Amino acid sequence: MSADTPVSLEELNAADRQRFVAALGLIYEHSPWVAEAAAARRPFKTLAALHESMSGAVVGADDSRKLSLLNAHPDLAGKVAQLTADSRAEQQGAGLDRLSENEFNEFRRLNETYRKKFGFPFIICVRRHTRDSVLRQFELRTKNSLPVEREMALKEVIRIAALRLDGHVRAADRLKVNGRLSTHVLDTYHGRPAQGVSLELHELSHVGGSRLVIAGVTNADGRTDNALINDRPVPIGRYELRFAVGDYFTRAGVDLPDPPFLEIVPVRFSVADPENHYHVPLLATPWSYSTYRGS
Amino acid sequence: MSADTPVSLEELNAADRQRFVAALGLIYEHSPWVAEAAAARRPFKTLAALHESMSGAVVGADDSRKLSLLNAHPDLAGKVAQLTADSRAEQQGAGLDRLSENEFNEFRRLNETYRKKFGFPFIICVRRHTRDSVLRQFELRTKNSLPVEREMALKEVIRIAALRLDGHVRAADRLKVNGRLSTHVLDTYHGRPAQGVSLELHELSHVGGSRLVIAGVTNADGRTDNALINDRPVPIGRYELRFAVGDYFTRAGVDLPDPPFLEIVPVRFSVADPENHYHVPLLATPWSYSTYRGS
Amino acid sequence: MSADTPVSLEELNAADRQRFVAALGLIYEHSPWVAEAAAARRPFKTLAALHESMSGAVVGADDSRKLSLLNAHPDLAGKVAQLTADSRAEQQGAGLDRLSENEFNEFRRLNETYRKKFGFPFIICVRRHTRDSVLRQFELRTKNSLPVEREMALKEVIRIAALRLDGHVRAADRLKVNGRLSTHVLDTYHGRPAQGVSLELHELSHVGGSRLVIAGVTNADGRTDNALINDRPVPIGRYELRFAVGDYFTRAGVDLPDPPFLEIVPVRFSVADPENHYHVPLLATPWSYSTYRGS
Amino acid sequence: MSADTPVSLEELNAADRQRFVAALGLIYEHSPWVAEAAAARRPFKTLAALHESMSGAVVGADDSRKLSLLNAHPDLAGKVAQLTADSRAEQQGAGLDRLSENEFNEFRRLNETYRKKFGFPFIICVRRHTRDSVLRQFELRTKNSLPVEREMALKEVIRIAALRLDGHVRAADRLKVNGRLSTHVLDTYHGRPAQGVSLELHELSHVGGSRLVIAGVTNADGRTDNALINDRPVPIGRYELRFAVGDYFTRAGVDLPDPPFLEIVPVRFSVADPENHYHVPLLATPWSYSTYRGS
Repeated sequence: MSADTPVSLEELNAADRQRFVAALGLIYEHSPWVAEAAAARRPFKTLAALHESMSGAVVGADDSRKLSLLNAHPDLAGKVAQLTADSRAEQQGAGLDRLSENEFNEFRRLNETYRKKFGFPFIICVRRHTRDSVLRQFELRTKNSLPVEREMALKEVIRIAALRLDGHVRAADRLKVNGRLSTHVLDTYHGRPAQGVSLELHELSHVGGSRLVIAGVTNADGRTDNALINDRPVPIGRYELRFAVGDYFTRAGVDLPDPPFLEIVPVRFSVADPENHYHVPLLATPWSYSTYRGS
Repeated sequence: MSADTPVSLEELNAADRQRFVAALGLIYEHSPWVAEAAAARRPFKTLAALHESMSGAVVGADDSRKLSLLNAHPDLAGKVAQLTADSRAEQQGAGLDRLSENEFNEFRRLNETYRKKFGFPFIICVRRHTRDSVLRQFELRTKNSLPVEREMALKEVIRIAALRLDGHVRAADRLKVNGRLSTHVLDTYHGRPAQGVSLELHELSHVGGSRLVIAGVTNADGRTDNALINDRPVPIGRYELRFAVGDYFTRAGVDLPDPPFLEIVPVRFSVADPENHYHVPLLATPWSYSTYRGS
Repeated sequence: MSADTPVSLEELNAADRQRFVAALGLIYEHSPWVAEAAAARRPFKTLAALHESMSGAVVGADDSRKLSLLNAHPDLAGKVAQLTADSRAEQQGAGLDRLSENEFNEFRRLNETYRKKFGFPFIICVRRHTRDSVLRQFELRTKNSLPVEREMALKEVIRIAALRLDGHVRAADRLKVNGRLSTHVLDTYHGRPAQGVSLELHELSHVGGSRLVIAGVTNADGRTDNALINDRPVPIGRYELRFAVGDYFTRAGVDLPDPPFLEIVPVRFSVADPENHYHVPLLATPWSYSTYRGS
Repeated sequence: MSADTPVSLEELNAADRQRFVAALGLIYEHSPWVAEAAAARRPFKTLAALHESMSGAVVGADDSRKLSLLNAHPDLAGKVAQLTADSRAEQQGAGLDRLSENEFNEFRRLNETYRKKFGFPFIICVRRHTRDSVLRQFELRTKNSLPVEREMALKEVIRIAALRLDGHVRAADRLKVNGRLSTHVLDTYHGRPAQGVSLELHELSHVGGSRLVIAGVTNADGRTDNALINDRPVPIGRYELRFAVGDYFTRAGVDLPDPPFLEIVPVRFSVADPENHYHVPLLATPWSYSTYRGS
């Protein structure tokens, strides 16, 4: 029973106090006292109840404990050596481990300003964000008053914990921490799902440039075999889906001009709610298309 | 009556032979003999008849005259000093006067290969093309046989002449040398034309990058006051229209998430037929949009 | 210069008082005193100013004159003999001259209830209504208080007058009394206007049944040569446009199942604002379509 | 083990010959010899194999047996007393038990003409048809030559048998005899599924009139809890889905004109392939909608 191997809720309920704390001690960064508080309240019928108990201990702690908890977190984009395994994996997701020298310095500068003002490092649940939205939150939250920002930081700590708990503990229920991004291509020229359409999902950055998140091809039902983003939060940010509609209709033998009116169809959209389902379908002919937030 | 000032068809019909040739001598590059042939066939009832007469003289000329005509044309992207005023203006339109050192060398290399194979310079009606499609035509046409390519080159010479003639001569009729690119934004959330939508038209390049062609804002009818491209051929190539739909709905007071699902809507399309009308409208709500080749 | 022949604003300004009143005496039903009041205020620079002057005389009249004016109007659906030529033409438009025995009795019953309550006949600008909306207004307005309903009735009298004035007097300006209903069919299978689509416009009735308003065929631009309703108010009510999309695609040689997925496409919509432009286009493939209130 | 109670494929494989024939003797109308032929070929691994064996016996029978099989079928819309329980249930589905006197006479007349020409009654798998398409098939098939029509009739006999077999026998596999008709309503004004939209599915008739097939209300996902037509063939014919879009947006508090531009949205479509899935979604705002054959 270690932090890396999923453990069942039953096992946690049955374990002695020491093993319980060992299993959940890292859910809250370097702060086993949260797990200790929850250990006494066992058994938990659901994962939600366990999460409620642990986050309740955080919310109910006195100010000095809260401050210690916040200070137990690493600097964003800080030195890898200081990170717990969970922190490292989370920061990789948002591309914070692939910063250029300039970007690294920008993050460090933002962090120093923030820490100087509030007395603790900037904490954000990076799995819910793209690099752009991390930067935007940095700027917005640095303007907060200390009491408001302390609440914000604790809320992020609890979000991080919820994601870790949902990943580490097997139970009949799951915490509502994941979203989904999916697509569907309909060929309204032939009146059937569009099979074999190549598509790419890119994350866009305000400072320019884009990052390929995933590429795929539609199956016989016009969908990708797996959702484009699945079993994790959909990071807040801007995206572009690119559908190779021209190649598709050319292969289908439709007589098209050279170049075809539509080749790559880009659909640009933003995600604001990472725990929700974003379905972004495309209905296309060689001369027209529609898209919408579906369900 | 000079090549730069429009002249009327009546004036041309009434002019003495010398003035007629002076007025039209540059329609076919450095080849006044074409105008001379037409002078004898006056009067012309329509501009189309005048064009038919001049192009007929070209088609009916013997091979050595045809070759001289082809050789009277400058190298594409060649030294500016060699160009007639018309040639210079035409090449500027396709951005051939703004080539980087590398691109200039690429054009020169292509031209040398072409000239070596065929014995005359590469001629193309550049006002009908973007930089990308000029390059593509260069590659495709270099593969032709000499007889096929001589026909292609003469066809381009006649296209260039038709555009010059349509611009230089006032008449009741016009030659079918111009196309049009227009747009229209409908707000299907409020059921009315979308007024005040900022939009940009970009020309895209296969080698990456894009060039802003024109920016505008929709009027009370959801259209731009003038067509995006008008009174000229719509250059063959790939384009992207970008509509600032998010700002529009925010200003209209619609309650949107942060960031809005739709901010900039890009519509990417290609033009294959420069003398046609491309109408590319957008029907949008904050959560959906459609586009199509309209009329 | 009679009520049936258009007269110009200049002629009216120049006419003697008697001829002026003769020309405009019937604009307000059997009430030449309205024209007399306006005669003294000549000359009028615009038709709008003339209308303003006449309607101002009505609004400024004392209560007994207002009541007389209201009582000068015929019962809706009443005996034809009592009607002025204008009233007769107006009532024909809403189909009030084609009532069945039952409907005629229903109208008479409504009218008796109304007249008993208010002391004057039910007046409505029938050219702005379908039969259904006349009936609905009958029911709604019978519930009004006397002061409210007197205002409503006078407002309708002025609307009727505005339409008559706009029809009888030629001037540089026109009163804003007319709307328009138009359509446009785009073939997004071939990417071009749909030429040769048969269509019908029907007025629907809540009690069931429908009345063909007009039938047509789309031209080369995908439109009807004239707007479906033009140069008159678009009557408030419910409509259905029916487009013979199946026949169109069959004739175009598209391979379709038997029966085709789409044959007649019905588009049902309502008009609430008779002086506005209703543009109701159809974008269709053999397997999909869109429609919207356009502009 | 009777014709009315489902029986499992295992039971059929294990039963003695007499019980097997008793269980399947009515799959082919009044013709137990087909089941007898299959009894000898047991065991069957799949329902498809059993069906293949029985239909193979029919196809391989000599002409006189085929003719007897055809003549074992009742007249369509004939006297109820002559029908097997299966035939009665099947004919009710297409409304053939609810014929008016005129319609009954029309069916009898068609049947007499048919029988006189071919020497056997008109056989059609009525569960795959609406009343209109039964009549259309009657007319089309009466024009066939005898050899062609004998093949057609046998094909229908086998279709009828496949549906009966699929309904009477439980097995791991199912015969591909069923289709599906479903819908989905998206609210592209709010960017979410449209919950609570009342809808009706009507079967249309060429001779006018329509028959309500099913009414429903969309759930939180914008769908009906069950497909509109499910677990049976979707009868060939013309349909209209009617969506109460106006009421939906009014209840959602959207400010609409009176009457709203869209109230009931009718979507008219035809089914040609009863064993397929017809998904007919609606994307709607108060001012626009789209529909298409989806998947």
